[in-house]
Amino acid sequence: MSDKKKKSGKSEELGFGQKAYTKTTRLISQNGEFNVEKGGLNFWQSLDIYHELISMKWWNFVGLITLAFFFANLIFALLYYISGIDSIAGHEAKPGLDHFINSFYFSTQSITTVGFGKLYPNSNAASILAAIESFIGLLGFALATGLMFARFSRPGRNLIYSKKAIIAPYQGINGLMFRFANGNKNQLIEAEVDVVISYWYPQGNRRVFKGVNLERKKINFFSMSWTIVHPIDEKSPIFGWNQKDFEEKKVEIIIMFKAFDDTYVRQVYDRMSYVAEEVEWGKKFSPIYNDSKKGKILVDMEKLSETEAAQLN
Amino acid sequence: MSDKKKKSGKSEELGFGQKAYTKTTRLISQNGEFNVEKGGLNFWQSLDIYHELISMKWWNFVGLITLAFFFANLIFALLYYISGIDSIAGHEAKPGLDHFINSFYFSTQSITTVGFGKLYPNSNAASILAAIESFIGLLGFALATGLMFARFSRPGRNLIYSKKAIIAPYQGINGLMFRFANGNKNQLIEAEVDVVISYWYPQGNRRVFKGVNLERKKINFFSMSWTIVHPIDEKSPIFGWNQKDFEEKKVEIIIMFKAFDDTYVRQVYDRMSYVAEEVEWGKKFSPIYNDSKKGKILVDMEKLSETEAAQLN
Amino acid sequence: MSDKKKKSGKSEELGFGQKAYTKTTRLISQNGEFNVEKGGLNFWQSLDIYHELISMKWWNFVGLITLAFFFANLIFALLYYISGIDSIAGHEAKPGLDHFINSFYFSTQSITTVGFGKLYPNSNAASILAAIESFIGLLGFALATGLMFARFSRPGRNLIYSKKAIIAPYQGINGLMFRFANGNKNQLIEAEVDVVISYWYPQGNRRVFKGVNLERKKINFFSMSWTIVHPIDEKSPIFGWNQKDFEEKKVEIIIMFKAFDDTYVRQVYDRMSYVAEEVEWGKKFSPIYNDSKKGKILVDMEKLSETEAAQLN
Amino acid sequence: MSDKKKKSGKSEELGFGQKAYTKTTRLISQNGEFNVEKGGLNFWQSLDIYHELISMKWWNFVGLITLAFFFANLIFALLYYISGIDSIAGHEAKPGLDHFINSFYFSTQSITTVGFGKLYPNSNAASILAAIESFIGLLGFALATGLMFARFSRPGRNLIYSKKAIIAPYQGINGLMFRFANGNKNQLIEAEVDVVISYWYPQGNRRVFKGVNLERKKINFFSMSWTIVHPIDEKSPIFGWNQKDFEEKKVEIIIMFKAFDDTYVRQVYDRMSYVAEEVEWGKKFSPIYNDSKKGKILVDMEKLSETEAAQLN
Repeated sequence: MSDKKKKSGKSEELGFGQKAYTKTTRLISQNGEFNVEKGGLNFWQSLDIYHELISMKWWNFVGLITLAFFFANLIFALLYYISGIDSIAGHEAKPGLDHFINSFYFSTQSITTVGFGKLYPNSNAASILAAIESFIGLLGFALATGLMFARFSRPGRNLIYSKKAIIAPYQGINGLMFRFANGNKNQLIEAEVDVVISYWYPQGNRRVFKGVNLERKKINFFSMSWTIVHPIDEKSPIFGWNQKDFEEKKVEIIIMFKAFDDTYVRQVYDRMSYVAEEVEWGKKFSPIYNDSKKGKILVDMEKLSETEAAQLN
Repeated sequence: MSDKKKKSGKSEELGFGQKAYTKTTRLISQNGEFNVEKGGLNFWQSLDIYHELISMKWWNFVGLITLAFFFANLIFALLYYISGIDSIAGHEAKPGLDHFINSFYFSTQSITTVGFGKLYPNSNAASILAAIESFIGLLGFALATGLMFARFSRPGRNLIYSKKAIIAPYQGINGLMFRFANGNKNQLIEAEVDVVISYWYPQGNRRVFKGVNLERKKINFFSMSWTIVHPIDEKSPIFGWNQKDFEEKKVEIIIMFKAFDDTYVRQVYDRMSYVAEEVEWGKKFSPIYNDSKKGKILVDMEKLSETEAAQLN
Repeated sequence: MSDKKKKSGKSEELGFGQKAYTKTTRLISQNGEFNVEKGGLNFWQSLDIYHELISMKWWNFVGLITLAFFFANLIFALLYYISGIDSIAGHEAKPGLDHFINSFYFSTQSITTVGFGKLYPNSNAASILAAIESFIGLLGFALATGLMFARFSRPGRNLIYSKKAIIAPYQGINGLMFRFANGNKNQLIEAEVDVVISYWYPQGNRRVFKGVNLERKKINFFSMSWTIVHPIDEKSPIFGWNQKDFEEKKVEIIIMFKAFDDTYVRQVYDRMSYVAEEVEWGKKFSPIYNDSKKGKILVDMEKLSETEAAQLN
Repeated sequence: MSDKKKKSGKSEELGFGQKAYTKTTRLISQNGEFNVEKGGLNFWQSLDIYHELISMKWWNFVGLITLAFFFANLIFALLYYISGIDSIAGHEAKPGLDHFINSFYFSTQSITTVGFGKLYPNSNAASILAAIESFIGLLGFALATGLMFARFSRPGRNLIYSKKAIIAPYQGINGLMFRFANGNKNQLIEAEVDVVISYWYPQGNRRVFKGVNLERKKINFFSMSWTIVHPIDEKSPIFGWNQKDFEEKKVEIIIMFKAFDDTYVRQVYDRMSYVAEEVEWGKKFSPIYNDSKKGKILVDMEKLSETEAAQLN
């Protein structure tokens, strides 16, 4: 997505190389992740804990912390249990399960630092364990706080793309179009789009990548929906192709999006792709703007993917 | 706001499209928000909690947290109450309201982890509830900490614009001017302004957007006030227009501001607009700089919007 | 600090305007702050609390938090005191000062959530106050945590400039030079410098700003010291000037620095200025690099401002 | 790494100067740090605490916090011990070591704010000490939280470079090549590489830096491995050189990498260098891509440095 204007049909290097994959592999999955797997790393190398922790869903994250809390208490309960029934005072628990449960309760009171004090450490072992446990509790919650904020400070991209790209009539010729909008309330500005069309080139037994012209590739405010149009003129690499060509050549339309997020005060990037099966021919997008009410311009997000039949040129 | 010099009168695409709104809709509200509403999203989709939480006013934010604290305690108090009067020991509360109030006190002592211990959990139910409550308390305060910091790390834009834009004499012709300053102490550098004039074009039944020339569009340090001047020469789209033209054509002057905030170490953006009714004709801005005292240059912010009558050319 | 090469002697607009200050006002103080004061704001407007809190020195910040802690306790102690001597149980304090001190201790145990429990709330008033106090305590520490991190995440610029700029012989002519280095261990890359010379222009009764040519204005790694050289050739605005001219024309040499901080992962800016009295004539900088030892290049920071006499051309 | 295309063989100024080091000093260590040491700073100036705290390894960081926790408790234990055996109540400790250990336990219960309450302060000295200690405890954990997050928010660069650079046949001539990949899961986009070759120039008794042409210096997605190729044609500064020349001229190949990290939402930079001894002649890289399985492109990281013999041109 460089600043200089790309000429339609110019060969591009996206970073996928040309021989690294078979004809049928999709390069970018629909959720914007690269379709790449790295082998030859051991378990710890391939486990990128931080990346997992900040990109997992909120419910998973909260669940994980809850699990960690539970197991930490289990371990400390066991240690208190081992250190003897008199090691914690202030209870009348019977040996066995009752004692273990009591140890577990004491553990929860130490790790959260609530420390009611009815139960209290009454031996060196328990005193030291309790000190360590509250220390770990505080560090653990500090860690959770840090991770929570790290999650918060990441712009939550929520770009909604039309389910299909379409081939629609456009100014006497046809155009390749798709439509997208920002599903969140964060304000995106200085938005920019680049489109690269990739297809299988049987003679060379390799994939080819061509940057294509867009009707408009930059807007100042991305607050409404935006319809991207690639005019299919003679300079277009897909000039004269039909639906069957798209499927045979395993066309993949790769979209790169860049904007400044004025809510998160960060640069944001997004990427998406449509494969040949996700392109509809002879359609046009239905209008998405309703009459403004309350002096506001209304965008109807439900109609984002809505199309109508249209006669191609 | 691209780097290349915009030619006055060149058509612009800000991202509002051209047909998406009626003639009279204001595009940018005076507080810099886009005048756009998104429909077709369900409640959860349209509710962008994070955006609300970090952009609401401080008092609302603190109020919300206090409310959340109160209701969390109410819920846990109810749960302790349900689990029986002996479930929490260390009190002489009578059944009924007295018991509930006592449960509420115990809840506050658990959720804040202060855990005095006079009141203590005396049943499995209460012990488990107390463990869960202090855990939730810690997570909740971790969340509040994260949100607080997220709010802190957002540059608090406080650009103060003159209440009106003016048409004033300028170097033998007239100029469209407005004045603004940074109301905060954060240091803005490499500041850049772009102005687009939008008006209703009846023949095409659509809005037109024209980027306009500025006397100066970039300064290194934005520490004082800055008067933006668009010279109304033959190249200007509003050349020869009078106040009545402004109102009939529903002129909106859209301002885009960009700078680097050296206090928050972030790029910041701002936007504003003046509609026809907010443009005063035949005025000029009063001086805003007082004689320096204490060896400092003094900007009198009170005079930012002050104008004097001036003879237009 | 734009990307295009500035021609020596071209007029610049830094954002100070040209008439806003008297002849003798320094524009940028030596610690890099703008010499500007904003009037006409009321107390709350002019008090930019956040800016103060994150830019004050660490000791002041810690002192302020400690004071806030002390006064919060004082206020709550007073409230507990007012609510009566039996309102807090677990003590044998006598009425009067003894009671107040006891209330103060209880307050510290509530606000920090340590809640030993020997002292415990024994009335509705005290129970509610204690709940509020621990809530405020937690929020306050959350706030302090947020501010601490906000302070941490700001690159601590510690550029050390030579005390004086010098006029030294340079390649057959003379050059205006100064030297600076990064006093911290953070790695600065893609560093860029711009120099503007400002002087009083009596005929116009105003200040003039001229961007000047530099021998080199960009380096990839700013890990050592960097000597900036402005060759005083015919294109220089100060060509042919002597020390007396500098003083009479109230010359101010304004330096703008920009780099990417690879430790803080942020863009950083700095600014500095030398006034006429801070320019030494007929000097050259002493070498600052010692023989490398331990296979490392050694920069001797003590010698940064060291100069030797030199014969000017 | 400027935007304009560098011509092969053009002299570069990286910021190392030309005379600052002896012939044999390596400029950039293999872990990407500058081989520079700053002298003439006193202990506090040269100690950049923050930089150390956020760039040390996680285990060291946790160890340091644990140590700080232990010593803070030791100091407060001593203070409680000094304030007398009755200063803390709720125990039956004997004077001497037993008393000290008891004081230590009380200290851990105060600093973590767990405050069980079995042990409680029973004198003015102990009450004030306990208040101070819990306050310090909270601030300390706030600090630790801030630092933890500061560590989290720094992109953890984990670029894996081939152990050696190679001279391999390339399109009828030879090329200088190296290969690298991103060892983490964070998504790097808009990746850019610049290569500068530095060598000793005996006639001038100084080092020379030459920017060199690359087959490709920018890719959109850096999700796989990337082989950088400098074609050694007539324009290359190392045209016609052999392995002996490399060693005699103390060649150092300096690599500058820049990308946008889409996980951390930050710009990231990296740098590396190969010295003459790390260049292998007459090799080519083994293929690194396996047949895709599960519809994914597979990169075998183990083979990153694997080479095969190849006939040079």
